[in-house]
Amino acid sequence: MDGENNNIMYQVSFMPSGRQVEVAAGVSLIKAAHLAGVHINASCGGSGVCGKCRVILESGTLEGGKSEKLTDAEYKEGYRQACLATVATNATIRVTAESELGAGSMSTEVPIRHQARMHVFNIDALKKEGVFAPPIEKRVLHLPEPTQEDNKADAGRIIQGLKKEYDERGMITTLPLLKKMRSALRENDFVVTVTLSRAVSKEGKTHIVNIEPGDVSHRNYGLAFDIGTTTVHGILIDHQTGKLLSRKSDYNAQISYGEDVISRIIHAEKPKGLQLMHELVINTINGLITKLLLKTDIRRNEIFSITLSGNTTMTHLLLSLEPHNIRRAPYVPVSTFFPPIRARDVGLELPLRAVALVYPSISSYVGGDIVAGVMGSGMYRTEKLTLYVDIGTNAEIVIGNRDWLVCAACSAGPAFEGGGITHGMRAAAGAIEDFSLNPATYEPMNITIGHKPPIGICGSGLLVVIATLFEYGAIDRRGKFNRKLETPRIREGQSGYEYVLTWKEEAGGDSDIVINEVDIENFTRAKGAIYAGCKTLVEGVGLQVTDLEQIILAGAFGSYIDLDSAMTVGLLPEIAPEKILYVGNGSLLGSWMSEMSNHIRRDVVQVVRKMTSFELSEVTDFKDQYIASLFLPHTDLSLFPATSARLTKTD
Amino acid sequence: MDGENNNIMYQVSFMPSGRQVEVAAGVSLIKAAHLAGVHINASCGGSGVCGKCRVILESGTLEGGKSEKLTDAEYKEGYRQACLATVATNATIRVTAESELGAGSMSTEVPIRHQARMHVFNIDALKKEGVFAPPIEKRVLHLPEPTQEDNKADAGRIIQGLKKEYDERGMITTLPLLKKMRSALRENDFVVTVTLSRAVSKEGKTHIVNIEPGDVSHRNYGLAFDIGTTTVHGILIDHQTGKLLSRKSDYNAQISYGEDVISRIIHAEKPKGLQLMHELVINTINGLITKLLLKTDIRRNEIFSITLSGNTTMTHLLLSLEPHNIRRAPYVPVSTFFPPIRARDVGLELPLRAVALVYPSISSYVGGDIVAGVMGSGMYRTEKLTLYVDIGTNAEIVIGNRDWLVCAACSAGPAFEGGGITHGMRAAAGAIEDFSLNPATYEPMNITIGHKPPIGICGSGLLVVIATLFEYGAIDRRGKFNRKLETPRIREGQSGYEYVLTWKEEAGGDSDIVINEVDIENFTRAKGAIYAGCKTLVEGVGLQVTDLEQIILAGAFGSYIDLDSAMTVGLLPEIAPEKILYVGNGSLLGSWMSEMSNHIRRDVVQVVRKMTSFELSEVTDFKDQYIASLFLPHTDLSLFPATSARLTKTD
Repeated sequence: MDGENNNIMYQVSFMPSGRQVEVAAGVSLIKAAHLAGVHINASCGGSGVCGKCRVILESGTLEGGKSEKLTDAEYKEGYRQACLATVATNATIRVTAESELGAGSMSTEVPIRHQARMHVFNIDALKKEGVFAPPIEKRVLHLPEPTQEDNKADAGRIIQGLKKEYDERGMITTLPLLKKMRSALRENDFVVTVTLSRAVSKEGKTHIVNIEPGDVSHRNYGLAFDIGTTTVHGILIDHQTGKLLSRKSDYNAQISYGEDVISRIIHAEKPKGLQLMHELVINTINGLITKLLLKTDIRRNEIFSITLSGNTTMTHLLLSLEPHNIRRAPYVPVSTFFPPIRARDVGLELPLRAVALVYPSISSYVGGDIVAGVMGSGMYRTEKLTLYVDIGTNAEIVIGNRDWLVCAACSAGPAFEGGGITHGMRAAAGAIEDFSLNPATYEPMNITIGHKPPIGICGSGLLVVIATLFEYGAIDRRGKFNRKLETPRIREGQSGYEYVLTWKEEAGGDSDIVINEVDIENFTRAKGAIYAGCKTLVEGVGLQVTDLEQIILAGAFGSYIDLDSAMTVGLLPEIAPEKILYVGNGSLLGSWMSEMSNHIRRDVVQVVRKMTSFELSEVTDFKDQYIASLFLPHTDLSLFPATSARLTKTD
Repeated sequence: MDGENNNIMYQVSFMPSGRQVEVAAGVSLIKAAHLAGVHINASCGGSGVCGKCRVILESGTLEGGKSEKLTDAEYKEGYRQACLATVATNATIRVTAESELGAGSMSTEVPIRHQARMHVFNIDALKKEGVFAPPIEKRVLHLPEPTQEDNKADAGRIIQGLKKEYDERGMITTLPLLKKMRSALRENDFVVTVTLSRAVSKEGKTHIVNIEPGDVSHRNYGLAFDIGTTTVHGILIDHQTGKLLSRKSDYNAQISYGEDVISRIIHAEKPKGLQLMHELVINTINGLITKLLLKTDIRRNEIFSITLSGNTTMTHLLLSLEPHNIRRAPYVPVSTFFPPIRARDVGLELPLRAVALVYPSISSYVGGDIVAGVMGSGMYRTEKLTLYVDIGTNAEIVIGNRDWLVCAACSAGPAFEGGGITHGMRAAAGAIEDFSLNPATYEPMNITIGHKPPIGICGSGLLVVIATLFEYGAIDRRGKFNRKLETPRIREGQSGYEYVLTWKEEAGGDSDIVINEVDIENFTRAKGAIYAGCKTLVEGVGLQVTDLEQIILAGAFGSYIDLDSAMTVGLLPEIAPEKILYVGNGSLLGSWMSEMSNHIRRDVVQVVRKMTSFELSEVTDFKDQYIASLFLPHTDLSLFPATSARLTKTD
């Protein structure tokens, strides 16, 4: 999210097609080819094993690009293994005939890959808009020493100083703070720094949460956390400058008790189970706080604010609230709003007066992570009709703009996380994450995470594989393989027809890596549920999907999604790629924003009140929409005019 | 304070003077004679030892009145020992010549004793005025069970119920409460009782502090405490009806570390001393809570509100605030305002969400006990120009009305508590608490606490003794004994001239009990400081003591004070006795009122802001006023016209 935009971009031209793409330094050449829509044979996933991806460097420089598959002489001639070479300058690359079989016939058909804009956290813009207003502020006071004529109490002297020097009124002190006042005032000749914690509501009063001798008003820090079911992400922020100081993540320690929220709830229902689940996530957070502070000079007791967001179940477990009814009809959480709490009261290792703010939820299945995303991405204050989608096992959908918001959750199933797919896997090293096809030979171009020999397919890879196979007619609109194609890659396997992505010899495991019709069906159900959810919601408010002016994609899956593929298979409505925004971890973004701006903390209350929740399973229309979505891209082709146009061409 | 007014009153007539007095059943006959201004010889303090107080019962009934000093025959004739007899019906008593030596000459001179009105806590009046508004209220909710169509969160359901059924809005919940909601709702078919804690400020929001299954809205209790330097008093109140359920008191366990606030502060300054002082008083309060609940069916966890008041030092020790600068010029307390706190946070054994409210102070030496008195006695809302005095070692004085208030503390010294007086003692069994004189013989009529043989004089006794000796010319305006009087009772002792109150033979100890000129001087300094304080304050705001329309007396000493004596010696300004009100323990009264009325909790903030504190030692006028007050009743006799008139007659 941060820093990436400072990378230098280089232009890479591919010959003979002449296709060009702009990529950051360090991107692998095979990835650049993917983005440019240029096919290079590469079935080993970019590990350099198969040596089939050789290209010729005509101008510019590449880093690496040589294994034992290439002789020194070849290297000197300009040969490179595309999967091992990374971009280092502007460069021109000639794709050899060996690699680009039938290149001529594909050059116009393979679309150029579209990357959506990445949301940029812009602190200067916040300051310009007057939205930069951290919940914690420090004020240094130079107070007069008491005399016979002016012997008001220490607390009164501080309150008066705040009024006189800063026009701060209606302050609230707490007992632990009163206890510190006498010595703090007298340690440095009545010069003290007061830490103020702003109320969330406008009518709310400011609390004095700390007092330190001397002027330490420049030291003011906060924390923001996303409590994911799988992973917990945390950041340390400087409240004075708005700068991100460090960022860490770790597995949610609850994960040993099951991967999904339902299994966590089941464990929480056991004797002492809730306490255990609570302690596990708190330990994870406390561990991350230690890591976040590790290479800084910041002490734990200088942090007075932490914002946390997570789905409804994670929030319940974080706060030790009984999640029992979240998994039972009619799905009633204990609470969707959470009062500001003393961080210590939930076990966070922070100062006594540190305040923890937990993002409110909408319902059992539209949680604080989604609300945080809506806030952090700015959706709540845009005029544009926006679709916000966080895609995971459960996809959460929000539609609306600054005037209205509707939301729903739909169970997409685990396909996007690699679940229920023959060779499905999480997005880890060896997972095929990108793919293209030589339309003449149906030979694949795989890219794996970490450039390891392929061991499976992750969610984003699955999307591209299916979209590409569909686009080139290897599978039809019902998700069935074209039995007539002459390629050894398509064959009848144990679970019906399948496509071989990687032969056993080039794979990291001991079998061929395939995708079969059952996998495609599972995927189609997942994408169908999401599309049907969006369409039901949009039409539920009297609009059409074609009215959408912006799409915001969130979540780990959302961040890696290929837009063209998503529209080709009918996962997302067709929309110009420049109208799509990636926010990455929307939940963390929202927590971060809340640490930067008290205005957002206030607005969230209104936003949540405004957000109407639909229970899709209750809407009869949803079922029809869902069934209509179980085709590629959809039963109603008129909803996908661009894809339809390409299909007609191919047919 | 409570119940006393329901006592039946009887009329007692004394012959031959014909003087009448109305007293409650059970009052000793000698006390009735005192009040009527009828002298009966009684030097043994009412223990029946001397047998000199015999009278004849002419009509009606008396209880008791016989020891071995009276034969059965005498008893049958109607003889009674006045000090052993108590009033049981209307009665006519003949004072015998033996007892009433020179009765004829005194009958017009001895004034009838004036009892001031006792402040009555009238809950019905509070209700009528709309001031009855306990800070804790309970609301029973009959909520609809969740359905598919209405599956809002448990917390939301409760909030909505409060809005719909009671128009309660803007509720605040806390985390511990959210934790209870799910099971509480489901234990009794969604019938729950919610406990609401009202904010002190008008803009403040109501907190939900408890939720219980079923309808228990009739069970709602609170506590009020006065934290005295010597004694801690506590009461248990029914918030639903306003009734007092029990009342207990105990020594403040800090007392083993010194009797006055200064020695407590010195101990608090030692290592771990503050923690010790804090724990001692908390233990005392916790012990009293146990005692208060002992014979009730009320459980500790049903109490969500406690109000406490005490002087500034006691308040600091209660809250573990460093009292160091209270005893050092320029006398700066840590705080005079205290936020509402979780009772548990200071160690009180009450539920997690119980709120403790501590009365604010004005300065280091005008504490929350005085503020509580001003609130509880209604002084803060009267139109009458009022003088409020709490007399102890330190006397606190407040002058004003609902529009303005000024206050000051003056060090009266320990004379009123029996300190610095040859035979001074605390108000305990055997202390002479009332006294009169046979003007012909200068023989005393003593009444002791508990009708024990005298062992000393308590503060209220000292006042009456000195006033009476002065009134009958036994001492002059400078406090010196009339050396010319022919009575063995006045003699030269070890510390100059003295009056023998009780001969050794009739006393409880092994020496004569006397009052000497040094004692009188100490007393005069004490009464002079208080009078000078009042006069300085009144004149400081441009008024005269003669403008006072009401006097409110508080404190243990204040509650027993004889008004006529107080005006005779010049302790209080002369005012019609019906304009004087006793409030007893003003501090406890204020805490009690705060538990009954949230309006008073709100008003107190304004009252404290309005209250101007004078440092009497800083006012040059005070020194002059003090010196002028070191006479009986005062240098300027025109300030005491009634006393002057009587003196002129006697001279």
